[in-house]
Amino acid sequence: MSKPLILVSNDDGITSRGIRYLVEAMATLGEVIVVAPDSPQSGMGHAITIGNPLRLTEVDIFKDLDVIAYKSSGTPADCIKLAKHHLLKERNPDLVVSGINHGSNLAISVLYSGTMSAAIEGAIEGYPAVGFSLCDFSHKADFTHAMDSVKHVARQVLEKGLLPGVALSVNIPPKQNEPIQGIKICRQAKAHWEEEFDHRRDPYGRPYFWLAGNFVNNDKGEDSDVWAVDHNYVSVVPCQYDMTAHHSIAQLNADWDI
Amino acid sequence: MSKPLILVSNDDGITSRGIRYLVEAMATLGEVIVVAPDSPQSGMGHAITIGNPLRLTEVDIFKDLDVIAYKSSGTPADCIKLAKHHLLKERNPDLVVSGINHGSNLAISVLYSGTMSAAIEGAIEGYPAVGFSLCDFSHKADFTHAMDSVKHVARQVLEKGLLPGVALSVNIPPKQNEPIQGIKICRQAKAHWEEEFDHRRDPYGRPYFWLAGNFVNNDKGEDSDVWAVDHNYVSVVPCQYDMTAHHSIAQLNADWDI
Repeated sequence: MSKPLILVSNDDGITSRGIRYLVEAMATLGEVIVVAPDSPQSGMGHAITIGNPLRLTEVDIFKDLDVIAYKSSGTPADCIKLAKHHLLKERNPDLVVSGINHGSNLAISVLYSGTMSAAIEGAIEGYPAVGFSLCDFSHKADFTHAMDSVKHVARQVLEKGLLPGVALSVNIPPKQNEPIQGIKICRQAKAHWEEEFDHRRDPYGRPYFWLAGNFVNNDKGEDSDVWAVDHNYVSVVPCQYDMTAHHSIAQLNADWDI
Repeated sequence: MSKPLILVSNDDGITSRGIRYLVEAMATLGEVIVVAPDSPQSGMGHAITIGNPLRLTEVDIFKDLDVIAYKSSGTPADCIKLAKHHLLKERNPDLVVSGINHGSNLAISVLYSGTMSAAIEGAIEGYPAVGFSLCDFSHKADFTHAMDSVKHVARQVLEKGLLPGVALSVNIPPKQNEPIQGIKICRQAKAHWEEEFDHRRDPYGRPYFWLAGNFVNNDKGEDSDVWAVDHNYVSVVPCQYDMTAHHSIAQLNADWDI
């Protein structure tokens, strides 16, 4: 049997620490091709590049792992589109993975996440797809304890596939004294960001703003991704790109004067 | 009774034609404040600005309508956050509207749409929110036939509210000989974009790519947004920002070895 083809992207950029860990893990499972942004794209959501041209350049930074890699000027979703429609063409990846994001993508953050947009773009193209995030924003975050879970989830998806229209968001707890307790299939917590803008003045006296925020979780459910990570489990949330609120259709038909 | 407060944004930029039509319509219904991007942001998805500061500047382009307006260097989602957390603070809008987008946002396009990201950000902040799109990409697109539907939808939402966690995506058919047939509450069609990259070389011989694509709809259902617009109805799709694929949770728990 031929080795599975695994397409790797991310949103922290091709030179980030997290993507090297992901490429190393995937290289043990199959043939790997990397197409990732040439610069950090955190918070890019599901942005695509419409009004500007895109660059795509082969780079040798994963040569030590015998992995072909390209950097692109585009967003994470652009990278998946370029891989599929320009580089791979008739070849179809058996798995699309994104990450490992340097920081969590829990609860509502899936919507803002560039990491998840690459995975969701993979699902839109019809491929099993997973976004991985490490819940540790610190500069020296340890990724090594995540490796077993990352490989285990990837193997499960390669063996069993995913439902059509579904991509997985996997969050790995930060390194702790105790080993990770296991994997939990979860829903997104009903948590939100409470934003504040830091208002400053530039050297010319003109105002500018930094977005800053605190993650606030009032969801006590034990089936949420936040609960799982807080209890040292890896959370796996199946995510869909069909955003229709089906439960609202009958209500609007009943309530509205149309 | 005091007039409702209506926050207006968009993704085509504050000087676009569509936002002027929307501001004019909303000024007949309440007190309007505009916070919109200073340049086009089509395809920005739910991007937010994390690694860079934001500018916010008052502008007088809607002075003729007695409407206060600000332009921002940020994304549509940033504009809603800036409005809420910096400009309005304790005041809460009764309605957040975005658009009118110069082009459709049907089916999967909700995910890529900057127009819808402003509306969805409004819903995340807890406000009734609607994104409006005109299904006509032509330079000289006529917006005038959309005005009655835009006001009617806004009035319904002001009177009856929306379910928590839901924002509406409203698509208006292009101007035709016959008047619009009415409003239909719909689901997103199961359609997709078939991408092609136009591969060119710059004057220095280096390659670059333009994303181009065709919208392909194989969904025959008469309850979809594409069907409605194709039959000269205004489509109203309730959209949710919780992306959990709840139907996949039991299946993963049953199938996976965890």
